[in-house]
Amino acid sequence: MTSSSPTVTRTQVAVVGAGPAGLLLTHLLHRAGIDSVAIDLRRRAEIEETHRAGILEEGSVRLLVDSGASERVLTEGVRHDGIDLGFGGALHRIDFAGGCGSSTRLYPQTEIFIDLADVRARDGGDVRFGVTDVAVGELTGHPVMSFADADGTRHEVRADILVGADGSRSVCRRAVPEGERRQYFREYPFAWFGILCEAPPSAEELIYNHSEQGFALISQRTPQLQRMYFQCAPDEDPDAWSDDRIWTELQNRLQANGHTLKEGPIVDKSVLPFRSFVQEPLRYGAMALAGDAAHTVPPTGAKGLNLALADVRVLAEAIETALGTGDLDALDRYSERALARVWKAQYFSYWMTTLLHRLPDAEPFDVRRQVGELSALVESAAGASYLAQGYCGWPAESSGRR
Amino acid sequence: MTSSSPTVTRTQVAVVGAGPAGLLLTHLLHRAGIDSVAIDLRRRAEIEETHRAGILEEGSVRLLVDSGASERVLTEGVRHDGIDLGFGGALHRIDFAGGCGSSTRLYPQTEIFIDLADVRARDGGDVRFGVTDVAVGELTGHPVMSFADADGTRHEVRADILVGADGSRSVCRRAVPEGERRQYFREYPFAWFGILCEAPPSAEELIYNHSEQGFALISQRTPQLQRMYFQCAPDEDPDAWSDDRIWTELQNRLQANGHTLKEGPIVDKSVLPFRSFVQEPLRYGAMALAGDAAHTVPPTGAKGLNLALADVRVLAEAIETALGTGDLDALDRYSERALARVWKAQYFSYWMTTLLHRLPDAEPFDVRRQVGELSALVESAAGASYLAQGYCGWPAESSGRR
Repeated sequence: MTSSSPTVTRTQVAVVGAGPAGLLLTHLLHRAGIDSVAIDLRRRAEIEETHRAGILEEGSVRLLVDSGASERVLTEGVRHDGIDLGFGGALHRIDFAGGCGSSTRLYPQTEIFIDLADVRARDGGDVRFGVTDVAVGELTGHPVMSFADADGTRHEVRADILVGADGSRSVCRRAVPEGERRQYFREYPFAWFGILCEAPPSAEELIYNHSEQGFALISQRTPQLQRMYFQCAPDEDPDAWSDDRIWTELQNRLQANGHTLKEGPIVDKSVLPFRSFVQEPLRYGAMALAGDAAHTVPPTGAKGLNLALADVRVLAEAIETALGTGDLDALDRYSERALARVWKAQYFSYWMTTLLHRLPDAEPFDVRRQVGELSALVESAAGASYLAQGYCGWPAESSGRR
Repeated sequence: MTSSSPTVTRTQVAVVGAGPAGLLLTHLLHRAGIDSVAIDLRRRAEIEETHRAGILEEGSVRLLVDSGASERVLTEGVRHDGIDLGFGGALHRIDFAGGCGSSTRLYPQTEIFIDLADVRARDGGDVRFGVTDVAVGELTGHPVMSFADADGTRHEVRADILVGADGSRSVCRRAVPEGERRQYFREYPFAWFGILCEAPPSAEELIYNHSEQGFALISQRTPQLQRMYFQCAPDEDPDAWSDDRIWTELQNRLQANGHTLKEGPIVDKSVLPFRSFVQEPLRYGAMALAGDAAHTVPPTGAKGLNLALADVRVLAEAIETALGTGDLDALDRYSERALARVWKAQYFSYWMTTLLHRLPDAEPFDVRRQVGELSALVESAAGASYLAQGYCGWPAESSGRR
C-alpha cells in the first residue's frame, strides 16, 4: 500500500451520498450558485438497477419540476387521484381531489435518480460514483470528506459544510458522538414480500388491502410490469416461495375484498424490512444529515423518498443562508423545520402500518377494531380528507391550520 | 326456605337492568304503547350515589329531549363546544362547531338516571329496584325473568322479548350458550386514578392532556366540584395517595403543557379499570343485549354511556317491528345496526387511549410519534374535524359519507 498524499479539492459543500437526496441537494445548490462535490460508494449502474418505491407526493413532483430536475415526472409519471382501501369484503376509494385537492404520481425512484444524474452531468456537477474508503472528519471545524476513486487514488474534499445523505447505513450519522445525538427506534414483527411480475395492471391505482390473513399492496410499474407486496414474517425466505404459492397468497387476500389479480411470470422477489428510526438533531457542527441517513420509515404510505426530498428542500435554503451569512446556526433551523415533518411522517407511516397489518399477537378484537376504523374513515368526508392529506403530503411549512 | 309458587306477571318486554339504558328503553317502548317490566339488583339510592361519566353526544341529548325523558339536560347540562388537547408544551383547542357543527353536553349519568326513573314513575312504569336472585330462561321460546323482591317474594315475569341491559357483569350475556356467541377482548396495562375535588373549575371545557409522565383528563362536575383523572397502574391503591401526592402528579402533567390546576380538598378517589369487550351477536332467540351488557369501552372519549343510549334507540325500533309483525328476526337487524356503531366506538376509544396514554413498554420513539400525530391532527382542519365527529358522535345511521 502506497501512502502518497491525497489529492485535495476545495468546495463549499461536500455531500456523502449521490442518491436522489444528495443529487437533488447539489442541483438546488448549483442553482443558488453554490459549489459542491458528491460521492457515492455505488456505481451509477448499480443504483439504476435497484427497485425502489415510486409514489411521489404533489410537493415532491413540484420540487422536481420547478427546479428543472425532471420533466419526465410529468410526461412519463402517472398521476393518481386516489387509492383504494380494501376491507370488510369490498374496495373503498379515497379520492384525493375531493379529499385534499391534491394527487400523487407513480414515478419510480430509479427514474428520479437518472433524471438528477443527467442534470448534474449536463451542468458539469462534480459527482463521483463507485468510490471506496469513505471517511468524514473535522465536523465541528472545517469538514473533510475523504475517499479513494476507482483507480485507488486517495482524495480529500475540504468544505465549509458537509452533508450526510448516505442512506440508512450512513457513515455520517455514525460520526456524531454519542452524547451529541438522540436515537429513536421501533421494530415491527413483520416485513413485506415484494414481487415484480410481467402482467397487465390489476388496478389503475394502488390498493391498500386489509384482510384476516394480513396486509397486501397492489401497485404498478409500467403497463407490462407490476409491483405487489404482501405482509410476511421478517425472516421469510423468498426462495421458499414458488410463483404458485405467491399468487395463492395474494389472490386470497384480495379476494377477501372481492378483487381478483391478473397474474404473470414473477421476475423478482425480495423481502423488505420494516423499521422506524430517527436520529436527532439533524445538525452536528458543520454537518447536516438528510433523508435515510437521519430517518427511516416503514414503507406503508410511501413516505421515505418524499421525506428525503422535503429535507433537501429545506436544507438547500438553510445552506444558502448559512454560507451567505457565515452563521452555521441556520442549520439548526433546518433541523427543527425538517424534524417537524419527519415526526408527522413517522406517525403517518406507523398509522398506515398498524391500521392495515395483522400483528402476530393481534386478538380477534384488533381485526374488528381495524375494520371499525377503516369504516369510520371512509364514511366520513373529514376522515377521508385527513387520510388523503397525509398521503399526498403536508404543506412545506406548518403555518397554522389548513 | 319456603318453596311457594312465584307470583307470575305477563308483559311484552322484560328488561334486566334499570340503569339509563334499561330505563330509556322502557320509556321509549311505553311511548310506542308497549308494556314492560324492568328490574335491577341495586336500590335506587345506590345507583344515584355512583359517580359515572357525564359527557353526552349531541345525538344522546336529542334522544333524551325528543323522547321527553329529560328537560334538565338542556337547562342544567353545560354545552361544550370543544376540547383542549394538551401536548408539546401547550394546549390546542379542537373546536366542535367549526369541526363538525356539533357539540357535547356535560350532564352526569346519575342525573340522567334520576330523570328517567322519575319519568317512568310518572308514567306508572313497572320498575323494581333492589331485587335479588335474578335468573333468565327459555330464551329461544317465551322468555322468563325471575327474581325475588325485597320481602323475599318470588316473581316470574313472562314476556315476548327479554332485554339484557344489566351492565358489565351481565347475567343475560352469560345466558347465551358458548357456541352461539363470539367474544372479543382487549386488556390495557394501565388504569385511571379518578378524583372528585371541592375546587373551582380549572378549565371551561375538558382537557385531554398528553405528557411524558402519562395521560391526565381535566373535567368538571359543578361550579364547586371537579372531576379529574390521571393514568396509573392497574393495581394502584387509592389509599396510598395523599392529597399532596395526587396534586403533585396532576400539576406536573398539566404544567408540562403550560397549564396550572386549581386545587381543593379531594372528597373521592378511585381507580377505574380499562378494558375493551364486545359480545356478538346482540340477539339470542327472543333476547337482545344492550349497553355495557354487550360491550365495554375504555373511558377515554366517553363513549360508554352514549353507545348504550344509541343501542337503545335502535333496539326500541326493532322491538316495535318485531312485536308488530310477530317476526323476532327484526332483532337481527338491531344487532347488525348497533354493532356497526359499536365497532366504530371501539376503534375511537382505542385510538383516543393509545394516542394519549403512555404505554409501559413505550419506546421514546412512541412518545415523539404521539406528538407527531397530535400535531398533524390540530394542524389539519380535516383532522380536527374527524376527531370532533368521532367525539361528538356519528349519525344514528351510517348512510354514506358525510
